[in-house]
Amino acid sequence: MGILVLRLGHRIKRDERVSAHCGLVARAFGADGIIYSGEKDDSLLKSIKKIVERWGNKFEVRYEKNWKKVIKDCDGKIVHLTMYGLPVQEKIDEIKNYKENLLIVIGGEKVPSEVYNLADWNIAITNQPHSEIAALAFFLDKLLEGKELKKEFKGKLKIIPQEKGKKILES
Amino acid sequence: MGILVLRLGHRIKRDERVSAHCGLVARAFGADGIIYSGEKDDSLLKSIKKIVERWGNKFEVRYEKNWKKVIKDCDGKIVHLTMYGLPVQEKIDEIKNYKENLLIVIGGEKVPSEVYNLADWNIAITNQPHSEIAALAFFLDKLLEGKELKKEFKGKLKIIPQEKGKKILES
Repeated sequence: MGILVLRLGHRIKRDERVSAHCGLVARAFGADGIIYSGEKDDSLLKSIKKIVERWGNKFEVRYEKNWKKVIKDCDGKIVHLTMYGLPVQEKIDEIKNYKENLLIVIGGEKVPSEVYNLADWNIAITNQPHSEIAALAFFLDKLLEGKELKKEFKGKLKIIPQEKGKKILES
Repeated sequence: MGILVLRLGHRIKRDERVSAHCGLVARAFGADGIIYSGEKDDSLLKSIKKIVERWGNKFEVRYEKNWKKVIKDCDGKIVHLTMYGLPVQEKIDEIKNYKENLLIVIGGEKVPSEVYNLADWNIAITNQPHSEIAALAFFLDKLLEGKELKKEFKGKLKIIPQEKGKKILES
């Protein structure tokens, strides 16, 4: 099973940090890559790639202007995370049972209504307003059943967990 | 058990959206309030309060310049979420067993080293770089064991979950 994330509607400057968090969460919580759509932002792509290079493992990062093409080219199923969707706790088993490729779509300030129709599942992590970053982390954790916490990363940088303070090894 | 979140080192403009996401996640995932430190940002506080007013329930939102005072005045224990800490999966039961007030501290670009010492637990949600927003959502979900998903909010706005599209009631 491959898991890609599609981040819609990126806006340079305004979304810089939120979109970066989306990419880092996708990577840290076990997705295989992130595709950004919206405004093309080379510095965003570069910053995520730099993290991948330093912290390890393969992780795809790219820009695609035509988000519809990404959805239509997907050879698996589409999960769209939205506060308007069905509760994750009711649908997660169904999604887990589908063991093929998944594309997880996250907004974006204004998600085109087509996305709701193109998605196989529109899934809400609570029906309250919060954050696509939180929704993505939460969903990946439920999908991967906590296995993402045990994922080993082999990078130049490695943290040795501490009760107090920081310990980081560089190789 | 009361749960408050302390968001350190807010910077106006640069952190506007990330700090807003922290507040919304705290609320949606079952915390009782958020205290912002760093630069005083009235428009941030106002935007969160407006969401609370429209979407319901009590949720404390305030600014406190002196973050050390917030930590020292806390009559419960302090959990600091940091990529340098001990794995959440090893410590969550211990934290859950402590059934009194909790203050969850999240960074901020540069967290003062004192925070690591003042915290009762320094907890990592993976030892990879990602997002305080994701860490907060993840931690609250583990702490509240999914009960946060069933929390009822009584506000002017209410979403009726849909398989496709959006349905929102306004009262």
